[in-house]
Amino acid sequence: MLALAGFPLGLRFVFLDPEQEACAAPLGEHILGRFDDHEQLSRFAERAHVVTYEFENVPDESIKLLAKCAPAFPNTASLVSARDRLKEKRLFQQLDIPTPPFAVVNSRADLDQSVASIGFPAILKTRTLGYDGKGQAIVRSPEDLDFAWARLGGAPLILEKFLQFQREVSVLGVRGRTGKMAFYPLTENVHHKGILRASRSCPGDQLETQAQGYVQLLLDHLGYVGVLALEFFQNGDTLLANEMAPRVHNSGHWTIEGAETSQFENHLRAILGLPLGGTAAVGHSAMINIIGELPELAQVLAIPGAHIHLYEKTPRPGRKLGHVTVQGSNEQEFEAGVERLLRVVCWRDMTEDTS
Amino acid sequence: MLALAGFPLGLRFVFLDPEQEACAAPLGEHILGRFDDHEQLSRFAERAHVVTYEFENVPDESIKLLAKCAPAFPNTASLVSARDRLKEKRLFQQLDIPTPPFAVVNSRADLDQSVASIGFPAILKTRTLGYDGKGQAIVRSPEDLDFAWARLGGAPLILEKFLQFQREVSVLGVRGRTGKMAFYPLTENVHHKGILRASRSCPGDQLETQAQGYVQLLLDHLGYVGVLALEFFQNGDTLLANEMAPRVHNSGHWTIEGAETSQFENHLRAILGLPLGGTAAVGHSAMINIIGELPELAQVLAIPGAHIHLYEKTPRPGRKLGHVTVQGSNEQEFEAGVERLLRVVCWRDMTEDTS
Repeated sequence: MLALAGFPLGLRFVFLDPEQEACAAPLGEHILGRFDDHEQLSRFAERAHVVTYEFENVPDESIKLLAKCAPAFPNTASLVSARDRLKEKRLFQQLDIPTPPFAVVNSRADLDQSVASIGFPAILKTRTLGYDGKGQAIVRSPEDLDFAWARLGGAPLILEKFLQFQREVSVLGVRGRTGKMAFYPLTENVHHKGILRASRSCPGDQLETQAQGYVQLLLDHLGYVGVLALEFFQNGDTLLANEMAPRVHNSGHWTIEGAETSQFENHLRAILGLPLGGTAAVGHSAMINIIGELPELAQVLAIPGAHIHLYEKTPRPGRKLGHVTVQGSNEQEFEAGVERLLRVVCWRDMTEDTS
Repeated sequence: MLALAGFPLGLRFVFLDPEQEACAAPLGEHILGRFDDHEQLSRFAERAHVVTYEFENVPDESIKLLAKCAPAFPNTASLVSARDRLKEKRLFQQLDIPTPPFAVVNSRADLDQSVASIGFPAILKTRTLGYDGKGQAIVRSPEDLDFAWARLGGAPLILEKFLQFQREVSVLGVRGRTGKMAFYPLTENVHHKGILRASRSCPGDQLETQAQGYVQLLLDHLGYVGVLALEFFQNGDTLLANEMAPRVHNSGHWTIEGAETSQFENHLRAILGLPLGGTAAVGHSAMINIIGELPELAQVLAIPGAHIHLYEKTPRPGRKLGHVTVQGSNEQEFEAGVERLLRVVCWRDMTEDTS
């Protein structure tokens, strides 16, 4: 999606991807290599005028290596903070961005102690390499602790209070090379089994300014360049930061149709030192992920205001294969479109027990 | 732009293009071949599930050849009518779509006779292969006739009355494989030296319904599949059809940002037999062509609501290198953006005498 946004700007792309079937490959030159393969990284760097990434599990050494040849954004400080749940939470604390209670867990004894202070229910999470709900275990009672430890113990962990919340929301911000910033409207998100299912743009939401303010603190502090997403749990007027993503983010996919400038175009404008585009919402927008299996294309496109984005990935359970945005100026038609779409897109993994 | 619109639908592309540096080539497989090269056409046909073209000077024999292997849209009847100014005008007459007065010119004697009946000023045009003002000569007095004949005589010609008009407008329609149709808002266009300079979306214009009705007649009569553009001269309540284009059209480029579904996506939906997307305008939109030389990218993108589309073509005088759309919901900001853009985009060929 970054490449598709970049072609009209006159950009051309080289991709480093360890997958033979990299879905971006048809849009540029594909260098097949792991993110820690220094030989392929060097080949990649030689070809690049500017480097970016959209996966926070790239080793920061690799980004440092690339940054010797070409400007690389976001910077490694942002990557390092975003990739490690402990560093991330400590950064939030440092900037007075509220978070759920958490504690470091490096041993079985740490786990008991953390639970004693935080209480049940809580979530044990690996500090690194978790995504889409992977590397997480909920502990609801003392009986769950052994199982959770057996599953995740060995890796550096963090225990977080599992809070009841009214909503999950996120805000995407973008910061250019001159330090200029812009923020997208607040987005309401629905996760299930750790996977984002759907997002809805909520411009003018009463918590938008507060959420955007937290993102601004992060962007400024990190000297960030590009798009960054910050996810929150909401209870009443309280926002608790859950995690940040130093990249274009699934909860901002609706911006392709639903904002003046998409997150993808603005990420490119930012890293190239170009003026940022407008981030205001255009009408009503909602995004629904296609997960595990593909819907009937004609059924989706028959829905007024629906636009599909397929990633050309081989279907498998739990895998994000694409997304659909419903967008429109008429609220009633828009809501009808969203309802209709929810009947067409099937999330089989929500009804089957695959966890 | 068709390919960029198609990737999200899960489509992949093979291009037949006689130019080594075909600007679409980075977005798919490029087969290098002339449009009448039967060997390359066969190679191309073997790879295609559906065929389309965006250039009306493709020989209809080539489309017939391709249509034996894969559905090819628009059909050759549409192509044949669109490519020959005489057949085109006669088709308009047949469907009661008003046109400027015209006459066939096959000899110097025909020219004198035509001028006598049509009067000055008039335009002598080649019946085929004209584009961007090429193959045309204005005759304002008897003294111009020899020169015009020397330039164009030999090819089959048509003489058209050169009318004063208040506006040039166009309407794009799209018809799917089931016969379902949709129409974009009326667009106001500015040409200079035969080249489209700028377009502006005018949804709800008082002549919109009339113009869309004419397009509907054409689409139905031709059994057309895909996007078709029809250009008019306007005087008061009168629309006179100038020409049609059996393809996505420059006067519809604003639909990328300015309509619910772009002309490119709708052309693809149509030829694939998928439901058509909404064609309503989103806010205010204007499009300005980049001709001959590239503007400063940062200057363009600094304009609120501006989006650039570069075609990666080598600059040369009079060549369309890209376009910029200004789009927005606030009318004042939008108008200010258009004005600012007109100062940034330079049409040197308008001030220099290159004709």
